[in-house]
Amino acid sequence: MYLTRSEYDRGVNTFSPEGRLFQVEYAIEAIKLGSTAVGLQTKDGCILAVEKRLSSPLLDPSSVEKIAEVDSHIGAAMSGLVADARTLVDHARVEAQNHTFTYDEPIGVEALTQAVCDLALSFGEGSDGDSKKRMSRPFGVALLLAGYDELDGCQLFFSDPSGTFVRYKAKAIGAGSEGAQSNLEESYSETMTLNEAEELALSTLKQVMEEKISIENIELARVTPEKGFHIATPEEVAVALERLK
Amino acid sequence: MYLTRSEYDRGVNTFSPEGRLFQVEYAIEAIKLGSTAVGLQTKDGCILAVEKRLSSPLLDPSSVEKIAEVDSHIGAAMSGLVADARTLVDHARVEAQNHTFTYDEPIGVEALTQAVCDLALSFGEGSDGDSKKRMSRPFGVALLLAGYDELDGCQLFFSDPSGTFVRYKAKAIGAGSEGAQSNLEESYSETMTLNEAEELALSTLKQVMEEKISIENIELARVTPEKGFHIATPEEVAVALERLK
Amino acid sequence: MYLTRSEYDRGVNTFSPEGRLFQVEYAIEAIKLGSTAVGLQTKDGCILAVEKRLSSPLLDPSSVEKIAEVDSHIGAAMSGLVADARTLVDHARVEAQNHTFTYDEPIGVEALTQAVCDLALSFGEGSDGDSKKRMSRPFGVALLLAGYDELDGCQLFFSDPSGTFVRYKAKAIGAGSEGAQSNLEESYSETMTLNEAEELALSTLKQVMEEKISIENIELARVTPEKGFHIATPEEVAVALERLK
Amino acid sequence: MYLTRSEYDRGVNTFSPEGRLFQVEYAIEAIKLGSTAVGLQTKDGCILAVEKRLSSPLLDPSSVEKIAEVDSHIGAAMSGLVADARTLVDHARVEAQNHTFTYDEPIGVEALTQAVCDLALSFGEGSDGDSKKRMSRPFGVALLLAGYDELDGCQLFFSDPSGTFVRYKAKAIGAGSEGAQSNLEESYSETMTLNEAEELALSTLKQVMEEKISIENIELARVTPEKGFHIATPEEVAVALERLK
Amino acid sequence: MYLTRSEYDRGVNTFSPEGRLFQVEYAIEAIKLGSTAVGLQTKDGCILAVEKRLSSPLLDPSSVEKIAEVDSHIGAAMSGLVADARTLVDHARVEAQNHTFTYDEPIGVEALTQAVCDLALSFGEGSDGDSKKRMSRPFGVALLLAGYDELDGCQLFFSDPSGTFVRYKAKAIGAGSEGAQSNLEESYSETMTLNEAEELALSTLKQVMEEKISIENIELARVTPEKGFHIATPEEVAVALERLK
Amino acid sequence: MYLTRSEYDRGVNTFSPEGRLFQVEYAIEAIKLGSTAVGLQTKDGCILAVEKRLSSPLLDPSSVEKIAEVDSHIGAAMSGLVADARTLVDHARVEAQNHTFTYDEPIGVEALTQAVCDLALSFGEGSDGDSKKRMSRPFGVALLLAGYDELDGCQLFFSDPSGTFVRYKAKAIGAGSEGAQSNLEESYSETMTLNEAEELALSTLKQVMEEKISIENIELARVTPEKGFHIATPEEVAVALERLK
Amino acid sequence: MYLTRSEYDRGVNTFSPEGRLFQVEYAIEAIKLGSTAVGLQTKDGCILAVEKRLSSPLLDPSSVEKIAEVDSHIGAAMSGLVADARTLVDHARVEAQNHTFTYDEPIGVEALTQAVCDLALSFGEGSDGDSKKRMSRPFGVALLLAGYDELDGCQLFFSDPSGTFVRYKAKAIGAGSEGAQSNLEESYSETMTLNEAEELALSTLKQVMEEKISIENIELARVTPEKGFHIATPEEVAVALERLK
Repeated sequence: MYLTRSEYDRGVNTFSPEGRLFQVEYAIEAIKLGSTAVGLQTKDGCILAVEKRLSSPLLDPSSVEKIAEVDSHIGAAMSGLVADARTLVDHARVEAQNHTFTYDEPIGVEALTQAVCDLALSFGEGSDGDSKKRMSRPFGVALLLAGYDELDGCQLFFSDPSGTFVRYKAKAIGAGSEGAQSNLEESYSETMTLNEAEELALSTLKQVMEEKISIENIELARVTPEKGFHIATPEEVAVALERLK
Repeated sequence: MYLTRSEYDRGVNTFSPEGRLFQVEYAIEAIKLGSTAVGLQTKDGCILAVEKRLSSPLLDPSSVEKIAEVDSHIGAAMSGLVADARTLVDHARVEAQNHTFTYDEPIGVEALTQAVCDLALSFGEGSDGDSKKRMSRPFGVALLLAGYDELDGCQLFFSDPSGTFVRYKAKAIGAGSEGAQSNLEESYSETMTLNEAEELALSTLKQVMEEKISIENIELARVTPEKGFHIATPEEVAVALERLK
Repeated sequence: MYLTRSEYDRGVNTFSPEGRLFQVEYAIEAIKLGSTAVGLQTKDGCILAVEKRLSSPLLDPSSVEKIAEVDSHIGAAMSGLVADARTLVDHARVEAQNHTFTYDEPIGVEALTQAVCDLALSFGEGSDGDSKKRMSRPFGVALLLAGYDELDGCQLFFSDPSGTFVRYKAKAIGAGSEGAQSNLEESYSETMTLNEAEELALSTLKQVMEEKISIENIELARVTPEKGFHIATPEEVAVALERLK
Repeated sequence: MYLTRSEYDRGVNTFSPEGRLFQVEYAIEAIKLGSTAVGLQTKDGCILAVEKRLSSPLLDPSSVEKIAEVDSHIGAAMSGLVADARTLVDHARVEAQNHTFTYDEPIGVEALTQAVCDLALSFGEGSDGDSKKRMSRPFGVALLLAGYDELDGCQLFFSDPSGTFVRYKAKAIGAGSEGAQSNLEESYSETMTLNEAEELALSTLKQVMEEKISIENIELARVTPEKGFHIATPEEVAVALERLK
Repeated sequence: MYLTRSEYDRGVNTFSPEGRLFQVEYAIEAIKLGSTAVGLQTKDGCILAVEKRLSSPLLDPSSVEKIAEVDSHIGAAMSGLVADARTLVDHARVEAQNHTFTYDEPIGVEALTQAVCDLALSFGEGSDGDSKKRMSRPFGVALLLAGYDELDGCQLFFSDPSGTFVRYKAKAIGAGSEGAQSNLEESYSETMTLNEAEELALSTLKQVMEEKISIENIELARVTPEKGFHIATPEEVAVALERLK
Repeated sequence: MYLTRSEYDRGVNTFSPEGRLFQVEYAIEAIKLGSTAVGLQTKDGCILAVEKRLSSPLLDPSSVEKIAEVDSHIGAAMSGLVADARTLVDHARVEAQNHTFTYDEPIGVEALTQAVCDLALSFGEGSDGDSKKRMSRPFGVALLLAGYDELDGCQLFFSDPSGTFVRYKAKAIGAGSEGAQSNLEESYSETMTLNEAEELALSTLKQVMEEKISIENIELARVTPEKGFHIATPEEVAVALERLK
Repeated sequence: MYLTRSEYDRGVNTFSPEGRLFQVEYAIEAIKLGSTAVGLQTKDGCILAVEKRLSSPLLDPSSVEKIAEVDSHIGAAMSGLVADARTLVDHARVEAQNHTFTYDEPIGVEALTQAVCDLALSFGEGSDGDSKKRMSRPFGVALLLAGYDELDGCQLFFSDPSGTFVRYKAKAIGAGSEGAQSNLEESYSETMTLNEAEELALSTLKQVMEEKISIENIELARVTPEKGFHIATPEEVAVALERLK
């Protein structure tokens, strides 16, 4: 009596007879084509670690950015369509600056995540007249937002193309997310130190990456109450990889 | 002579030959995919109880919010697309504040429900120029709005994607709503105390939930004339679950 | 040589080869899915009576409103999509208030009906820029508008999704309209008293309702020159039902 | 080599390979579903006569208006979609008043007909920004416009959905137009008196009506230089029908 | 490898693989359904002659206008959709008046033809914001524009739905254009007098008309340097037809 | 795995799987249906020569313009849809006048060509609000722009529907362009005099034209530093054709 | 269960079930139809070298520009749709000038690349009201942006239709990019001198070009800290080709 799934899956805002929005589900598939990213939260800080895919030895690894600073106390790891991610991160930065300017205090991590999701939800056919960034399709990107604020301490949030977000203790996204998440569920403990979390992040990535893990093909960052968001230098990545052995 | 159902079900505002609007009916299906929520009204107050689905043990249960405060005297339990629900709840909050600001009294529960339904009804292809939130499809969410006002006392309203609302003494929505509603119809009595209503809400959820009921996978709230809307703390949930045994 | 009916029935404003607008006809079908409503006009006043469908015993019957006050001298009974009806009734109320404000006299019943039909006719794909309520499909609702004015006395009008209206002495709409209209044609007389008309309205509803008629599942109203529009209290409904036996 | 007719007939402004606009032709079909109307012109005045279809004995015949006053010297009989006709007649009335206000003389009959046709022609997909009445489909109505002006005396014009108009000595439109027009061509003479024309109009209607002609199911009007537009009272209709025997 | 013609012929501005715009070609077909019109140019003036199709003996022939005055020195004969032609002629009249007002001299015949073609070309899906007359399809009409100006003397231009125009010594359009044009090519001579041209125009029409030529079913006009544009009175037509025998 | 070509060729801006834009390619086909045009550049000036197709002996050849003056030092020969060409030439003229007015010097030939191509490229579905000439399809016309400026001397540019342009020493466009271009490549020499170039242009046209070359069915122009753009008079064409023998 | 790829590939912003955006992928195919371009970065500067395809010996090679100056310190080599490239380069030039004007320093190479990608990403169906250049499809062009700034020295960036960019030491694009990139990966060394890089660029082009490499069919440019962007003169190209032997 019903048509097959494929009859309902091209309108960005058309419900299927079972009440599903297929274009949003397909956008979530786009994330499964992306490189793997891992985030962990501890009492002392958060860790973000991402695989970089280098299609050519002549490509400059430092120009492939998969972890971005949103504010001095918040960072984001991304998986999926890179250009979509940039739009979301740019929006997040403006929201963070606006908050600081208006209230003279850093934006909370959850409030920032909500602002990102508000934009992610606003895709569709209509136009709302005053926003240049409204998309005619869902954003094909997932974000891991890690940050610190005075109210809730270190936090890790996960947002997806449907515009929803939840808080995780440890979360993996991207092509290898299934295996990576299992690994995290086995090994994660809330009492981990930040260094132990970093090791777990790297060993998780190492397991799911097709290529051998190296200084060049991963990106690593941490957020701590003391130093805020900090992307690891090549030297720091080397030290972390050394510890992994 | 007629085509099959599927020929009429993709236009958001196309009548089928029998006079049905299928996209609205499909949006109602989206709610049947959502987690179960239950609401009860007694003379002394209202109870809202919702199942939380936790897809990973690393997910932070407190970040999955299925019951939201609308105003200090009104709360909403939701089932269906979470991001759609947030849009409706945000709208409800603004309406409530506007009312208080304009008339210097809390908004009535029915008036607030009507404001939510006005927004829910306004989906469609056209644009009305001054509202950023107009959707190009029906909202895929049902709400249970529980509140108290001086005129009508404690009230429970149910709103659905078609933009209609009715008042219930006790109502269940979401994936397990069929079994839950039967249970409510059997056991509900208008003379229940608030605690008895809470027990009925929890025992109803317990019956329809696939996982074992626990402090982490449910959310509980009450609205009373004295204390207004209040989400139960983990301790209060534990006490209520204990009483259930 | 022609295609079948179904090829022309999805464009809201597409003529079929026989010159028919199917979406309007399908909207009229939506009314046949609605609960039955009955209206009668006598020299002394008008009667409106509507069936209420209560899908659950826990539903609060008083929150299912099928008869609405438009102005102190005009009421409307509706059948079809409830949310569409609310849009039309809201529009009618504004028109009535505007008239009173501008001319310092109550609006005539026919003028008000025409204002409702102007809105009902204005659906379509284009946008007219200054009206928020323009629909992209026909309104799926029929109204019985009963009222009193000095010029024409008590009047009963019927409006449908095509935007046309006619005056009736007695008219039934909704799922049971066929049997109900036959009953009215057999028993209606212009010389009826208002109480006789009320009895005919209730006995007509009683015949076509699937459930047993009761205080809870009907709504009753009258418009008289002396008291204007008045919805019957439960006590008055009980008295009327008693008289029916 | 060509597709069948049906491939070109849903776009309101799409030419078929033979250069035809089918939606306009289908709108003309809508008129053939309408009630029959007849118009005649004599030296002394014009006659308009229209069949009324009364679907129920409880319907108030006086609320079915098929002849409308446009100005004190011009009237219009209509056949087809009633709501479309009202839009055209409202437009005609405004044009007539504007003319009188601007030039301090009544508008000419042909000028008014042209104004109606300008609106009828302006349907289409685009929007012209300042007119609320632009339709996205052709108007499904034909008009017989009868009037008197000093320049050309008594005149009868016929306008159709394509936006063209021509002057007729006698013209029938609607469901029975074929038989009626034949009757007119046989019996009409330019030297008829106004009463003879009225008799011919009524006898023509009588022939094509399915129901027996009566005071209730026809509408009659005349336009004369002396009295302008005048709709016959029930008494006058009775007299005219009496003369017919 | 290609689809058939019919796959490309409904988009108003879609090229077929061979580089053709079919909707324009179909609009040209609309002209072949129209009544025949003939135009001739001589040194002394231009002749326009058009067939009138009278569908009923009760139709007033004088209200069927196929030749229109554009300015006192320019006239237009039309074939195709009458309402489209009126739009073009109205536009031409405004352009002519604007020219006279701005430059205090009559507009040249070619300049006027170009203005008509500018409008004819501007059809399409977009809207240009300031013109009410933009069509969403090509104009289904051909014009013969005959006029006189001091620079180029008497001239005859032909414009078609593609927005192009060329000058002709003698040209026939409409249903009988093929036979008529052959006749003109055989018999036309540049040294003809105006009366000889009129005779050729009428004899050409006579050949291709299905009905017998008469005072009532043709329209005749001439443009001369001395008298400008002049539509022949019935008496003048009678004289011309007499000469034809 | 891919669909056939025809599935991608109707959207004006839809890429095929091979990365092609078919509507642009089809617009280029429209040029191959046009009359042949030839352009040559020498040190002393440029030659433009175009075939005219005369569909009827009664058509006035001088009204078929295939070569247009853009500015006193630049001319354009066209092939394809005449009405599209006129839009481009009008735009070019305005650009040229604007340049002269702003900088008090004639516009360069390449700058003018670029301005034409900017317009040619801007077709598409969106509207940019301030330009009336934006097309919803590619322009179906190719231009040969010949001109002289102080910086680069005599130049010949070729522009096509894709909005690209290149400079040629000699170029043929239109139905006979293939044979004509071969002829040019064989016989063209950079050291030709202007008269030799004119002879080559005419002999090339002569070869590819179906009808016998004559004064009436070709158009000839030259651009020289001394005299600027000049369209040959019939006498000059006759002289040139005489020399050809 | 899924449809074939071809069902999802025409909507510019429609995800396929695997989360892919096919129109962007097809636009990338357009680049593979373009001429080959090669870029290299050394410590001393960058080299850009592009093949020119000359379709006719009469075409002026200097008018085929495949390398464009963006600012005095940045150049761009392009492959794909030339007209699209021009739009991007024009945008880049304006961004560069704006930066200089606002900050009184040359724009950084990465910042400029980002500005180009922001435009490339902004295609889609909606309109953002203030930008004339928004495309309704992805840009069918890839760019190699080579430049020098004080912060990062000599840099080479690659941007594609998806709006992403990465930095390369050496990169080939266009029809022969596969073979060319292999060649670069084999022979490139970070310690190359600028002349060695130029030789590698030319020998790489020579390998993949179908025609014999010559002064006329290639374009060559370098960017150095001392001299900025400089397109090689024919003499310099000749010298470079001589060195190649």
